[in-house]
Amino acid sequence: MEWHTFVGYLAASLTTLSFLPQAVKVITTRNTQGISLLMYLMFVCGLVMWLAYGLLIGDAAVSLANLLTLLFALPILVIKYRQG
Amino acid sequence: MEWHTFVGYLAASLTTLSFLPQAVKVITTRNTQGISLLMYLMFVCGLVMWLAYGLLIGDAAVSLANLLTLLFALPILVIKYRQG
Repeated sequence: MEWHTFVGYLAASLTTLSFLPQAVKVITTRNTQGISLLMYLMFVCGLVMWLAYGLLIGDAAVSLANLLTLLFALPILVIKYRQG
Repeated sequence: MEWHTFVGYLAASLTTLSFLPQAVKVITTRNTQGISLLMYLMFVCGLVMWLAYGLLIGDAAVSLANLLTLLFALPILVIKYRQG
């Protein structure tokens, strides 16, 4: 593996997995003060588009990374939406 | 432009710009309750890696999109860090 490929994998892992601690925090505390509903609305729509893009171009890495991020971001959006 | 390219641009625009309303909310209200410090630590590190990756492979779109997201995410991290 070339080292710039390693940098890319590290980048993708960090930005994808960063939403895990946020999801855990929101699910366990139900505290969504400070979190922007508009951010998660736009972000989840963007992830669905990324997933579609990955499927359209047949890129498994793009599809899977965005599907995983969607699994973390969706419960944050749902809980934030319910709390208004 | 092929339509899957349009889906890709729309995806990138949504996920990048989604951090703008979150940054505005945190900067104006200084309320970071519910926001995960670990998320923003990982996310900002990931964005720096993405920026490095974009520069390494000479991809202006990857570099610029992640630089822009970094401009929105960095103030959120700084304000959250200060509030502990």
